[in-house]
Amino acid sequence: MKILIINPNSDEEMTKVIERNARNFAKGEYEVDCITNETAPAFVTTYNDIAETMPGLKKIIEEKEKYYDAFVIACHSDPNLDLLKELCDKPVVGVGEASLKIASMLGHKFSIIMASDKGIPNKELLVRKYGLISSLASFAVANNGEGFNWQDQDNLILAAKKAIDEDMSEVIVLGCAGMGHVAGRMQEILHVPVLDGVTCALIIAVGLVKAGLSTSKVRRFKSLSK
Amino acid sequence: MKILIINPNSDEEMTKVIERNARNFAKGEYEVDCITNETAPAFVTTYNDIAETMPGLKKIIEEKEKYYDAFVIACHSDPNLDLLKELCDKPVVGVGEASLKIASMLGHKFSIIMASDKGIPNKELLVRKYGLISSLASFAVANNGEGFNWQDQDNLILAAKKAIDEDMSEVIVLGCAGMGHVAGRMQEILHVPVLDGVTCALIIAVGLVKAGLSTSKVRRFKSLSK
Amino acid sequence: MKILIINPNSDEEMTKVIERNARNFAKGEYEVDCITNETAPAFVTTYNDIAETMPGLKKIIEEKEKYYDAFVIACHSDPNLDLLKELCDKPVVGVGEASLKIASMLGHKFSIIMASDKGIPNKELLVRKYGLISSLASFAVANNGEGFNWQDQDNLILAAKKAIDEDMSEVIVLGCAGMGHVAGRMQEILHVPVLDGVTCALIIAVGLVKAGLSTSKVRRFKSLSK
Amino acid sequence: MKILIINPNSDEEMTKVIERNARNFAKGEYEVDCITNETAPAFVTTYNDIAETMPGLKKIIEEKEKYYDAFVIACHSDPNLDLLKELCDKPVVGVGEASLKIASMLGHKFSIIMASDKGIPNKELLVRKYGLISSLASFAVANNGEGFNWQDQDNLILAAKKAIDEDMSEVIVLGCAGMGHVAGRMQEILHVPVLDGVTCALIIAVGLVKAGLSTSKVRRFKSLSK
Amino acid sequence: MKILIINPNSDEEMTKVIERNARNFAKGEYEVDCITNETAPAFVTTYNDIAETMPGLKKIIEEKEKYYDAFVIACHSDPNLDLLKELCDKPVVGVGEASLKIASMLGHKFSIIMASDKGIPNKELLVRKYGLISSLASFAVANNGEGFNWQDQDNLILAAKKAIDEDMSEVIVLGCAGMGHVAGRMQEILHVPVLDGVTCALIIAVGLVKAGLSTSKVRRFKSLSK
Amino acid sequence: MKILIINPNSDEEMTKVIERNARNFAKGEYEVDCITNETAPAFVTTYNDIAETMPGLKKIIEEKEKYYDAFVIACHSDPNLDLLKELCDKPVVGVGEASLKIASMLGHKFSIIMASDKGIPNKELLVRKYGLISSLASFAVANNGEGFNWQDQDNLILAAKKAIDEDMSEVIVLGCAGMGHVAGRMQEILHVPVLDGVTCALIIAVGLVKAGLSTSKVRRFKSLSK
Repeated sequence: MKILIINPNSDEEMTKVIERNARNFAKGEYEVDCITNETAPAFVTTYNDIAETMPGLKKIIEEKEKYYDAFVIACHSDPNLDLLKELCDKPVVGVGEASLKIASMLGHKFSIIMASDKGIPNKELLVRKYGLISSLASFAVANNGEGFNWQDQDNLILAAKKAIDEDMSEVIVLGCAGMGHVAGRMQEILHVPVLDGVTCALIIAVGLVKAGLSTSKVRRFKSLSK
Repeated sequence: MKILIINPNSDEEMTKVIERNARNFAKGEYEVDCITNETAPAFVTTYNDIAETMPGLKKIIEEKEKYYDAFVIACHSDPNLDLLKELCDKPVVGVGEASLKIASMLGHKFSIIMASDKGIPNKELLVRKYGLISSLASFAVANNGEGFNWQDQDNLILAAKKAIDEDMSEVIVLGCAGMGHVAGRMQEILHVPVLDGVTCALIIAVGLVKAGLSTSKVRRFKSLSK
Repeated sequence: MKILIINPNSDEEMTKVIERNARNFAKGEYEVDCITNETAPAFVTTYNDIAETMPGLKKIIEEKEKYYDAFVIACHSDPNLDLLKELCDKPVVGVGEASLKIASMLGHKFSIIMASDKGIPNKELLVRKYGLISSLASFAVANNGEGFNWQDQDNLILAAKKAIDEDMSEVIVLGCAGMGHVAGRMQEILHVPVLDGVTCALIIAVGLVKAGLSTSKVRRFKSLSK
Repeated sequence: MKILIINPNSDEEMTKVIERNARNFAKGEYEVDCITNETAPAFVTTYNDIAETMPGLKKIIEEKEKYYDAFVIACHSDPNLDLLKELCDKPVVGVGEASLKIASMLGHKFSIIMASDKGIPNKELLVRKYGLISSLASFAVANNGEGFNWQDQDNLILAAKKAIDEDMSEVIVLGCAGMGHVAGRMQEILHVPVLDGVTCALIIAVGLVKAGLSTSKVRRFKSLSK
Repeated sequence: MKILIINPNSDEEMTKVIERNARNFAKGEYEVDCITNETAPAFVTTYNDIAETMPGLKKIIEEKEKYYDAFVIACHSDPNLDLLKELCDKPVVGVGEASLKIASMLGHKFSIIMASDKGIPNKELLVRKYGLISSLASFAVANNGEGFNWQDQDNLILAAKKAIDEDMSEVIVLGCAGMGHVAGRMQEILHVPVLDGVTCALIIAVGLVKAGLSTSKVRRFKSLSK
Repeated sequence: MKILIINPNSDEEMTKVIERNARNFAKGEYEVDCITNETAPAFVTTYNDIAETMPGLKKIIEEKEKYYDAFVIACHSDPNLDLLKELCDKPVVGVGEASLKIASMLGHKFSIIMASDKGIPNKELLVRKYGLISSLASFAVANNGEGFNWQDQDNLILAAKKAIDEDMSEVIVLGCAGMGHVAGRMQEILHVPVLDGVTCALIIAVGLVKAGLSTSKVRRFKSLSK
């Protein structure tokens, strides 16, 4: 089995981190490659960023569909996910959707760690679209300053701890792809499940391939151009 | 005041119809132009169609922002509306959003006339996103056949009548832009309000300009690239 | 075109302010008159106040229906709005409904400026009735003391600022009619849209008249006495 | 203990039926009187009817508050119930609210028997306001014709049976006050609970008096005129 | 009429308190007995506690069904209530369901007094199941420490007062059965309705018996083993 | 890795079918055993059936926790799932929850194939509890007669086809565990994803083990007895 993880942004470093984490998780049971969306911006924050990921994502899916068994879209805002599910006959799994739905099975409410409050409205719309608004404890903004750094684990842990203690959160979801190496340590410190989206999406993607399942093509995701 | 109506698809004929209807509605009190999104497909049905409207819509907004006071996106599925609100400092009004919100002020429940059932899931997500799901009586599919034609008024009227009689609908929303000329006649026959989206969007757009209102740029629609 | 704005309370001063603001907004493009509901109390806060506005509102609508093209009910709690929509064949627009629905088009969430917390429960029911509860950021109570004064702009601005910064609000709705002159200055200071209900209701009312639209009379608002 | 049942309409015959049913139910354990709202219309269907019940309901509550321990508003659309709860320090129980909330304890979903479809939109708003929309199986319209007659039990039973068999209803709520004598026979035939609103409201009203409970006066129902 | 109150836990002292309160409330108009669920744990907090109440509750209902007219399950988390409604042909009323539904008739929002935050998630699910989430102001945790004591009235009153002042609560629901003697004093101090669940359940249970109503056996609560 | 699938009912035949399907799916990559809940009834339909599965499920979890890495509860009504998540420190996955959440990722709406309408109310509560009510197209009752047989594939296919064509369903969920062998053939005929719950639960369970994730023990599922 071969899974392609698509990093919707153009940050090559992040692609490498995601690929390494994913291969660690896969343990050689299936092949995993991670590809950068070179024509996209380096970060995905705004609607414009989401729009700019589109041409590259579409191109990658179209070119790679026949070489892989399933695809993971490795950005927690699930950019263009509906489009990619429509374009592709094989499973396409969003990091946001997979992690939020698995989070809702592990505890009463989850909090999503965010890099800034700019992304909260759109993330809330996503949670609502997935039917999980009553499972949302809070958005835990790790840092509002410009110099925020996803590598700054102390800040992440502080924000998560506050969510657990004050917002009644029981599960932490990392609101950015490619943090798989951090999740483990955070979980040890916080004593609650800490979910990395790419891991969650791999669980679903690999499972769907094994089960012979894919996106329904009967109506919403039916492609008229194929 | 100058309003630019953007037809997200590339159907020049529809652009002309929309422009004529809009100018009839404007009665010379403000200028209205209608522009075709030339790089887009001729119809907007699938997520891929929506994606293909994006580059052209973005380009038009960016080029025309300084020449017009407000913009109307003339497709009832509000393609890329969040993006365009973010990109533009002036009011951008979607035909879907405007017509559904006005419809909810005129009666208990509305039905949306649809050309086929392919578009229902995405339209339902839109209604839900706008908070209006409890005001939705039904989707009235005018025709499922390939040969459907928005000019076929008898079919539209039949579908609308069924919605009023059987689905408890009180207001009819035309689920496609550029039908302003039909709304009047349908209303006479059906004795309930029949809403053309472009007309509704013009009401809001012109009103916002006069009131000095536009999209809030404080968080969700804040553009980081400007 | 002639629009009648009905001030549901008996405060003549407020009527004059509303009329002046409305005429400024209309810029002579249509006629606007504002009438006081003389048999009502001076403020509308309680359910009893709402009840006491009823006989006068009904009388005004019945007497004036033939002389005007549309009616605006200029109190943000939309007192007796369902009744007036039923009684009248011409458009009747509530200041609350119009401002909340337009607010939801301009940003992710809105806050409503309130004079006291007594009115919050009923306002929440209104927001819920209009399907907009997920667009509500907060009720921003400008002042709980007895000496509250809608002219006290500093207090309004402070309450609005807190809503934007702490409650994630993106749009401010003035929860009282007749503040049109304040909205502009607040908007300049706050850098988010500040909505005056009467302005919003005029946008809708004028638009409906131009489009030949009015309340559906097919079921919910069908009058059996006409 | 003395309970006053207020018939919001002016139909003396209905008042007598309600009083007789209520006294049969009370079995002399407490006193029950039923009073007619003489200035109201004979039926309560439209928003105008509801408005016309207001002055009389208010007058009755104000005059009788000191002589009775609790009040039942005997019309299933709960006309002016919020107002009466605000005006009165003693318990005021609506026939609609009491019957719907009790119905939701007795089965998965209930259907409401209606005399015509004109009242469905407003009844739906009521069910929604009471938080019970997910417990609503259907509105069972007993008869749409003009000659409908609540005495026509066969028609009621037919409509209820259809609701149970086709709409998955498990409990029947009679959508009109004063049918207490019919509920028993319907229940025998249908083998599901059939709820008479006045009976349900008496259960709540008598219970509240015994428990020393009444409407909270802290905010929503606080009267500023007392 | 004979009502059996079942204390789902094995705390004999609580059973005695509940029985005494209930008989005080009944004033001899009907018989009330209270029985202890001897095989259950002394407190009901966890899902395991709820499970351990099950065999005893089932046995009591099966043995006592023929001797009593209705049953009250005297624990505010309504343990196994659906099961007991299914098993029994006579009315079975949960203290949680009855108190929350009556609370929603007496004010805009209620707060539930809780002994610890461990029980909040499950209580929230209950409120949601009963359709009352929009009537929930807050969970007011009286004490998180191990030494919490329901007899510690000062703590209860403090928690309730905070809920009224800060969470916009208008009605207080005691989240534990057998506090009937406290409710009265709290109500005097707080000036809002304070609801004891057993009292509320008795109101409903006695009323259902008098009205000849019981659980619908048509589908959800149909017992296949009888 | 070792997964234990627990068949909550006492039907040994079904246990064998489930085990065979599961091992086929596992392909030897991990060990799967399936155990029968011997003290339970042969079918799980009523609340009483669910209660009777409890002691055995609890005993199995307690005895087997140390020998397995994760547990699957193989009944589509997720009997006692909250309890088992609380009791066990290792992942416990319900067949209902896993299949419904995965279904919601594969299409707009799903239908659940049911053996009779008796189980619909409780299944609806489950869907609502999981936040997926807006993804539910319909319950497709395959057969209401007594002689229903899950082996009767023609009936299943007919019911599913009707759901796709008439209820706008896009994904089929088999509402009973142990049908893994049928899903494949149904999918071929229906051309939409057909989900077997056990397969879905295995996907999640195996994934959680690999990712080092399990139920959050911070509040809702915290066991006080361990």
